[in-house]
This record gives sequence, C-alpha cells and structure tokens, in this order.
Amino acid sequence: MKKNPQTAACLLIGDELLSGRTRDANANTLAKALYAKGIELIEVRIVPDEHKTIGNALIDLKVKADIVITSGGIGPTHDDITADAVSAALGRKTVEHDGAMKILKAHYAAKDEEVTDARRRMARMPKDAELIANSVSGAPGFRVENVYVLAGVPAIFDAMLEEVLAAVPDGEPETVYHVTGEAKESDLADGLRDLETALKGLKIGSYPGPTGKGGPLTIVCRSRSASVCEQAALAVKALFTAQGKEAEIGQGDRPA
Amino acid sequence: MKKNPQTAACLLIGDELLSGRTRDANANTLAKALYAKGIELIEVRIVPDEHKTIGNALIDLKVKADIVITSGGIGPTHDDITADAVSAALGRKTVEHDGAMKILKAHYAAKDEEVTDARRRMARMPKDAELIANSVSGAPGFRVENVYVLAGVPAIFDAMLEEVLAAVPDGEPETVYHVTGEAKESDLADGLRDLETALKGLKIGSYPGPTGKGGPLTIVCRSRSASVCEQAALAVKALFTAQGKEAEIGQGDRPA
Repeated sequence: MKKNPQTAACLLIGDELLSGRTRDANANTLAKALYAKGIELIEVRIVPDEHKTIGNALIDLKVKADIVITSGGIGPTHDDITADAVSAALGRKTVEHDGAMKILKAHYAAKDEEVTDARRRMARMPKDAELIANSVSGAPGFRVENVYVLAGVPAIFDAMLEEVLAAVPDGEPETVYHVTGEAKESDLADGLRDLETALKGLKIGSYPGPTGKGGPLTIVCRSRSASVCEQAALAVKALFTAQGKEAEIGQGDRPA
Repeated sequence: MKKNPQTAACLLIGDELLSGRTRDANANTLAKALYAKGIELIEVRIVPDEHKTIGNALIDLKVKADIVITSGGIGPTHDDITADAVSAALGRKTVEHDGAMKILKAHYAAKDEEVTDARRRMARMPKDAELIANSVSGAPGFRVENVYVLAGVPAIFDAMLEEVLAAVPDGEPETVYHVTGEAKESDLADGLRDLETALKGLKIGSYPGPTGKGGPLTIVCRSRSASVCEQAALAVKALFTAQGKEAEIGQGDRPA
C-alpha cells in the first residue's frame, strides 16, 4: 500500500444490509474517523454475500482509492466468504495463517474451549496477509496489499479500525466551520454559489433539517486553507444577515 | 423501465455522507421497503457531489439492476447537481419541467412567497422526466428511464418512496423465519452449511449480537418456497437442541 494514503473506499459485505435486517453503522464510523485523519473517503458500497460480486467490487475500489476497508463476512459460518473472495480477486491462495491460528488457540484455550473446524476457518486468509488485532473476540482481521479486511460486528469493527488507523499516517485535515441560522436555503443559494466560485479551494454544503419542513439551516464550509475557511464562514454569516436573520458561526460541521 | 422489476440498486449522493457528518438513513428504509415487496436490492453506493462520479455510478447501476433509486442533490443550492448529472449520464438535455414549475408556483404562492431563481432550479430535470410527488415540501422528484430520483432529506425521501413503490408491482416476497437462542455460531456452523447445501433455494444467514461478546445468536432462513423455509427453521432449531440449547422459531428476520 501507499505509505501516505490520501483516499479510501469502503466495502460493506452482507445480505442482511441489503434486506434491511441490519442498518449499517460501520460506514459512518469509518467516515468520521477518516475525516478526522484528513483521509478522503471517496466511495462506499454495500454488496451481498456473493463470491464474484465481492471480488468485482473490491477490484473496482482498490484501483480508485489508495486504501480499501471492508466490513463483514469473516466469521466462522458458511456465509462468511470474504477471505476467499479477496484471495480470488487478488490472485492469491487462501492459506491457514500461522499467527492467526496461534491467536485462536490461545483465545479458546483461555476459555477452556476447543478450536473447532468452524473456528479454524477464521484463520484462513490470503497468502502473506498481515494480521489486524481483535481486542474484543480474538479472531483477527487482516491486511493484504491495500485492502484492510475487518469484522462486521460493530464493536469488533471499531476495535479493528482503531488498530488500522493507528498505523496509517495522518493526511491533511481540512478546516471546517459551520454557520447555523433560521434562513431558507433557497434564499442563500445565489450567494453561496458566488462565494464558492470566488474562493479557491473552498467547498460549501447546505443542509436543511431532516424534516423538510423548516428548522435551522446549517451551511458547512470546508477548505485545506484555514484562512479561506474563516473568510468563507464570515461571508456566509453576512448572507444570513442580508436576509434579516441571525446566525452562529462555529468550528466543525455542526453545532455542538 | 421493466413493468415488473425484480432487482433494484440504490445510489446515495452527498459529501456529507462521506465526511461522516450525516449517517444515512435512506438506504435502510429503502432496503426494508423493497424486501417487503419482494424486490431484491442488489447494491448500494454512496458517492460525493461530483458530476462525473454520480454519472459513472448511475450508468453502472442502471445496467446491473432493473431499477435505480437515488437519494440527494435535488434541492435549490449550488451543491444540488443530481438532475444535471443524471441528464448527462443518460444523454438527455436538462429542461425546466412545466408540471414541476406549476407545483412550485402553487406551493410558494400558498405561502405568499416567490419562486426565486434558486427555487426555480428545482424544476430542472432531464427531458421527458415523469414527476414523483413530494407531499412534504412541494418540490417533486422525478423518474427517467429506470432511474428514480428522490430527495435526500429523510422525511421527503420516505414520502417520495411511498409514491414510487405504490406504482411498482410487487415481486415475489420470500418466506423468512428466524431461530434465536444462546448457542455460539461456530458450534452450529457445520450443520448450517450442510443444511444450506441440502435444501435447494434456501439461504441461511448467521447473526451474532452487535457486541462481539456473546448474547443471543439469530439464524435467518429465507426461501421463495414456504415449505423449504419451514423445514429449514425446524432443522436449525434441532441444531441448537443438539448443543443442549433452547431456541425459539419465529416469522420474519428477527424476534419481534
């Protein structure tokens, strides 16, 4: 993988996400963590537990982004096929990883349980994979090339993600300000467009509330230049003022 | 579009989803609604507010699935570029839709407000688009070919989705049973694999709790054949029993 990844993509694997049984939590966790590190998340995909579909999506994403982080499909049951799909997509054999087997043996020995054949499956990984520690339930994830394979269970995903991100150098975080007030976004639209055009390296997002029926409007300004971002936030506040509306400026993408 | 869509894909559009500012709710809403109708959701993608990226994803998905449902980017501000991106991807002009303009004029007249240039943008759609009513805030979504373009604000997305699905015929819903008990999934893994192999048209998913530290295990059986699914649920319960564990069978993908 690149030593200093600038971009990332996320591949969520699981029939339960597409049937609606489970509402994914991991993409948002990942998005926030990457954003804080200054690494740009450029795409998220959800695919079912199907060998070829997983592989095709993985190949697409690993070309588009510097790193790919996957979630799901690395447990002990028959529907856990991520390791095999990743191996096939990368043209590698799937092998039993010695280090992973050691971890599984120690984990289950401590609970006075056996490493059954099903549990042993959790040590199967693409050849030459590096382990990602699982502080919650033993069975590790793995990295191969620029692909990080994490568990889907949110508590385990979170723990593995912490391991992964600790080893990845920070990118260049953006400066972010929000401006919140009671104006209508259509009344600010022309001014926002002009502002984004006028200030180089500035991105502006306009976010009305979730109801679609009014409530506070939040304008988010983002830039790699702190001074551009500050200038933009003040200009956005002036747009509210021009509508006779009060507005509050704050750091980050929303009021605390 | 096909008269009886069997498969669907979902395209979520918005920088705020990839920066982690917003945790998407619409994909799960859509997944559950499609599942209940017997239409298979085969992929979800999240992409940023970028013209070409939206277009490329749309072209990919509209070939893969019978229908594509998009969310986000149809408001009045400069970052709302979905209509233009969809037009470009489908090789159509973007035009001001007469019916949409009528709706906007009536909506704002009723509030004694003007249709400003920014609001007028919300009537811009690919040529020959059909409107999707918005019972929450006026500005409609649209359908063109097999692509349904909905708002990202969850309350508006929900209202538009209801309109869309009322006009789409039901597919063939699966029969679904769950079996829940305190067993470990690795102890059931071999039996589940054998069962899925033995019964044609059966899919089995194994879902431990979200903590990764035990708690009830739920096995979900799905099939277009009700009798296969019932047979499978009984067999799964027998796998729990063989481990000396009690288990409850119920309809649907989880305990009520």
